[in-house]
Amino acid sequence: MNAKKIAGEKAADYVKDGMTVGLGTGSTVYWTILKLGERVKQGLELRGVPTSERTRQLAEQLGIPLVPLAEAEPLDLTIDGADEISDELDLIKGGGGALFREKMVALASKRLLIVADESKRVQRLGAFPLPVEVVPFAWEVTARRIERLGCHPRLRLADKGTFLTDNGNFILDCDCGLIAEPAVLNRKLKELTGVVDTGLFIGMADTVIIGASEGAKTVERQCGTDA
Amino acid sequence: MNAKKIAGEKAADYVKDGMTVGLGTGSTVYWTILKLGERVKQGLELRGVPTSERTRQLAEQLGIPLVPLAEAEPLDLTIDGADEISDELDLIKGGGGALFREKMVALASKRLLIVADESKRVQRLGAFPLPVEVVPFAWEVTARRIERLGCHPRLRLADKGTFLTDNGNFILDCDCGLIAEPAVLNRKLKELTGVVDTGLFIGMADTVIIGASEGAKTVERQCGTDA
Repeated sequence: MNAKKIAGEKAADYVKDGMTVGLGTGSTVYWTILKLGERVKQGLELRGVPTSERTRQLAEQLGIPLVPLAEAEPLDLTIDGADEISDELDLIKGGGGALFREKMVALASKRLLIVADESKRVQRLGAFPLPVEVVPFAWEVTARRIERLGCHPRLRLADKGTFLTDNGNFILDCDCGLIAEPAVLNRKLKELTGVVDTGLFIGMADTVIIGASEGAKTVERQCGTDA
Repeated sequence: MNAKKIAGEKAADYVKDGMTVGLGTGSTVYWTILKLGERVKQGLELRGVPTSERTRQLAEQLGIPLVPLAEAEPLDLTIDGADEISDELDLIKGGGGALFREKMVALASKRLLIVADESKRVQRLGAFPLPVEVVPFAWEVTARRIERLGCHPRLRLADKGTFLTDNGNFILDCDCGLIAEPAVLNRKLKELTGVVDTGLFIGMADTVIIGASEGAKTVERQCGTDA
């Protein structure tokens, strides 16, 4: 069985009857959502909050009841993927471009459960370029400010022109090298006029399920390591 | 002569030949732009960077050459209005909804010159509700976060539905009471996921020209009071 499926299905066990659950996006959490669809057919009561249009469609096809974020807060749990997971359980997300909605949903949740395969684990974040959502107006000026923080931003392109987020903004994929202090970098980036939010999820993940062909490994955040 | 005209025209004296100048928006800086149009006709060399569509149109009508912000940085000077000006020369801006572009242009400028009439001067900021630009997605969640900071946000409406900024975002007009520590409040607001930027301009204004019927008064930022 493949590693993503193992991790994704295992995460579904964390969902209990009556919960409101943030539903992430990606090839691992896909398996979680399939499993939750099965359990809903078997009688599980569940309200889902999708983090993307794609997840919304999948959940609707499976008959999972959905609710808007503003009416769902606080969510009991969010299950989502990640592009990188550090030893401290800090994350880089946003490879798919949905970092803003994913962060909003995760911040509104009591717990954040991350599912991934072993390839996403790193000692230190930063090999994966950090996605930063920016306002399109004079984005070059914002890019120069990000450069001054020691990063090399590159405007994300789509098939036709510039990639646009769900919010109508641009993404700068920023090579910041290996990130020594993710919380500091996140704060400095978010402070910049022009930056809407970053793909750094600091101190947010409570549990990480890492899938491998021989089974799933679960890592819990240690007490006192919250950012 | 009216106070706004006196302050606005006086500000035009700060513009020297060859400068690149950020052109603000509003009923006082309107007089600055008219005056600059006259001086351009008399041979002044000037490149303007407009902070709004309305200012762009006015400057074009007057024959003031314009340049996009990204190509103009660093600007020599920006001249703009304000909704409130404190004794420390901190500002609340954004009553017109253009706080983002105004802040981007001001931050890209070596000097910020504010023009206003006496009614805008306050001992402490906050009687004027603070405009905060937020991402529309789940804006109610963002509003709740702002409430936790001690403010009362109100969604700005337009003639038809919700007011939209040039960036396609919403404005929350936030009654935060009199603001004891504007820099702290600004940082806490900007840190919030969902907040794009705020109307607090802290430590940015270098010079303030206050118009009154009997003439203009100029206040310079004191050394060492930069935020």
